[in-house]
Amino acid sequence: MVAERTSAFTPPPRLLLGPGPSMVHPRVLHAMSAPLLGHLDPEFLRLMDEIQHRLRHVFRTTNTFTIALSGTGSAGMEAALVNLVEPGDPVLVGINGVFGSRMAAIVERCGGRLIRVEAPWGRIIEPDAIAEALQRAGSVKVVAVVHAETSTGAQQPLEPIGTLCREHNALFVVDAVTSLGGLPLDVDGWNIDVCYSGTQKCLSCPPGLAPLTLSDRALATIRSRKTPCQSWYLDLSLIADYWAEAKRAYHHTAPISMLYALREALCLVEEEGLDARFARHRLHSDALMAGLAALGCTPFAQEGHRLPSLNAVLLPSSVEEAPVRAELLQRFGIEIGGGLGPLQGKVWRIGLMGESSTRNNVLTLVDALEEIFLGRPGTGRPGPARESALQVYRKNGLHKDVRAEHAIRAPKKGNDRP
Amino acid sequence: MVAERTSAFTPPPRLLLGPGPSMVHPRVLHAMSAPLLGHLDPEFLRLMDEIQHRLRHVFRTTNTFTIALSGTGSAGMEAALVNLVEPGDPVLVGINGVFGSRMAAIVERCGGRLIRVEAPWGRIIEPDAIAEALQRAGSVKVVAVVHAETSTGAQQPLEPIGTLCREHNALFVVDAVTSLGGLPLDVDGWNIDVCYSGTQKCLSCPPGLAPLTLSDRALATIRSRKTPCQSWYLDLSLIADYWAEAKRAYHHTAPISMLYALREALCLVEEEGLDARFARHRLHSDALMAGLAALGCTPFAQEGHRLPSLNAVLLPSSVEEAPVRAELLQRFGIEIGGGLGPLQGKVWRIGLMGESSTRNNVLTLVDALEEIFLGRPGTGRPGPARESALQVYRKNGLHKDVRAEHAIRAPKKGNDRP
Repeated sequence: MVAERTSAFTPPPRLLLGPGPSMVHPRVLHAMSAPLLGHLDPEFLRLMDEIQHRLRHVFRTTNTFTIALSGTGSAGMEAALVNLVEPGDPVLVGINGVFGSRMAAIVERCGGRLIRVEAPWGRIIEPDAIAEALQRAGSVKVVAVVHAETSTGAQQPLEPIGTLCREHNALFVVDAVTSLGGLPLDVDGWNIDVCYSGTQKCLSCPPGLAPLTLSDRALATIRSRKTPCQSWYLDLSLIADYWAEAKRAYHHTAPISMLYALREALCLVEEEGLDARFARHRLHSDALMAGLAALGCTPFAQEGHRLPSLNAVLLPSSVEEAPVRAELLQRFGIEIGGGLGPLQGKVWRIGLMGESSTRNNVLTLVDALEEIFLGRPGTGRPGPARESALQVYRKNGLHKDVRAEHAIRAPKKGNDRP
Repeated sequence: MVAERTSAFTPPPRLLLGPGPSMVHPRVLHAMSAPLLGHLDPEFLRLMDEIQHRLRHVFRTTNTFTIALSGTGSAGMEAALVNLVEPGDPVLVGINGVFGSRMAAIVERCGGRLIRVEAPWGRIIEPDAIAEALQRAGSVKVVAVVHAETSTGAQQPLEPIGTLCREHNALFVVDAVTSLGGLPLDVDGWNIDVCYSGTQKCLSCPPGLAPLTLSDRALATIRSRKTPCQSWYLDLSLIADYWAEAKRAYHHTAPISMLYALREALCLVEEEGLDARFARHRLHSDALMAGLAALGCTPFAQEGHRLPSLNAVLLPSSVEEAPVRAELLQRFGIEIGGGLGPLQGKVWRIGLMGESSTRNNVLTLVDALEEIFLGRPGTGRPGPARESALQVYRKNGLHKDVRAEHAIRAPKKGNDRP
């Protein structure tokens, strides 16, 4: 008898230039197809040690508690806040987009006394505004901000806020979902106590894990809570006992295959080198923004504080947002993101994260937009947008096509190992 | 320049016969290596629809809200309880092992008024005890029990409790982590309101997702809460709006690759047919238990209520638990589970779930144990334990090796489709 086999699911070809997931390297995809190990197998525990070591490198931290949480970036956000905040605790949250608002919602759900420091979407939270709010509040337990506001493309300065937190004896929580591995982040140097991310952004790993690191100060605060953490699944004092080398106490079954993928993605990050990686993200963002400017798109986020990983642009008034985005997907197989909340229909959010951040991808997108905007299908002649993007590459000596790309991505041995 | 490439992680060969993860079919491993789609891509949304359809089939339900939650089975447990229970709500929990205790802990963390109905570990919760507790309590909002107690190997009868719940107007929550896809479960027929599972047990998919289904009654209760759900990440009213075909409101990024895997694992379940799959689990469990009996192991769970998916046995007093289990792993590459909590050092928990439940695996384990127990390394002669296991197969006409196995797993077209 022959089995009545269902046909395999074959995803259509896609170039992922939205707000995540980003493109995943074949080595990472391949890693997931390895057979499973038990979550308490000595070989798997060794892999966890290795992942912790590699995560400390990308977070730039020596924190013992540096792990990959079994959930997406949003689970990282929830874990960070519900573990630190007890009912009545004063918590200051910077709100300038969707993800700051989400932090505020979580603080309210765990009974924290929310202190909002707001800025218009697209602008950063000024450190001075945080300073004033800290002064006014007297005592604040936690200050939480978003490093890379994926909804607006704004890049939040962190170092001055870290300094303020130490001065006011507050714990500093940072959402690095769309920054870890794509732009400079220095957990220890900037006095960050809790930092979490997601795997599907600049680390170019599939979604499903939230890298998370806690300072000893933060862990001590969690271990001395007066009330139990409201989440059992995300209770970091329990999870610490699974990841701790000496204990390995069973808490829940780790998502084995995702951890295989993360290990491989972190290897790729180290092979490239963090500094080279940050330079690559910045270069391709510059080229993309030059190309988009030639098409009449204007940057949405505040000048001087624009993310290289997530490029948010306002569309020219002549362009209808949703139909063009649908055409990109259907005709070209290119995914970009639309606006969230009040920005719906007004902006595009174009991700150049991890493996997605390449010269070929920038030019492919710019060409496609040019074709759609200018209504010149099939002429094959490069237009002014492509030319503007190319100028950025030429200035940086990257005019010789793909080989040049490889040069910029070659690893510098030992260049930024901790 | 050549990249300084880190060598790939290659897991050592393992036969996974512990309490999960179980062995994963190559088709499922392969599915995870497909390139990613965005979580709002129309093709991905179609895949979600397909997964919902297939999950309804294995749960035996018509519930609209039938999804795969972005977390492991424990996240499913937490989601079920924190969404239904508001502070002060009376919640009855059956406690006869680790997972009933975990449910009770979660009920307390969300401020529910916990009513414990306990039974010794290894025994079931008698439906009469539930009936009495319901009478005594007057009004109970939720009754929660574990279908397959992974810590003890006991299989809880559900149907009479479902009937009691309807009589008392209580919502019925069932933990089906170690049962879904491996033994009969009938969500609609047994009046179950909330049922959750994990992917890494009888579905033989890697860990990382929690299949979850809610009756309309349960969803209405959640939608009419007086207080917000304490978890934002697991807030099922928000998650419902992402999975709902008409809405697709962004909540968090779904773990795309894991959903590829689950889709393929569910295809395999359907190809085999649920009834054939249940029969397979029962047969191999019987053979294993016969072999273990010949080695002096005795079943731990109550007679007549033993799980086919998780076989818990007490060891003969002459056997040291941990060293033998370590030898199994190191010399034979076979993983089995030790006891949890009070059962540590006293029992083994041997999983025969999904792809792990085969004749070859049973005989391989029995042979290895025989070799270790009887201290007859390398003789290659089958001992009494293998003979006992083989007798069970002979009685069932499965004495002709692997081909017979294929026969029992051949799909019966349309035999149990809903």
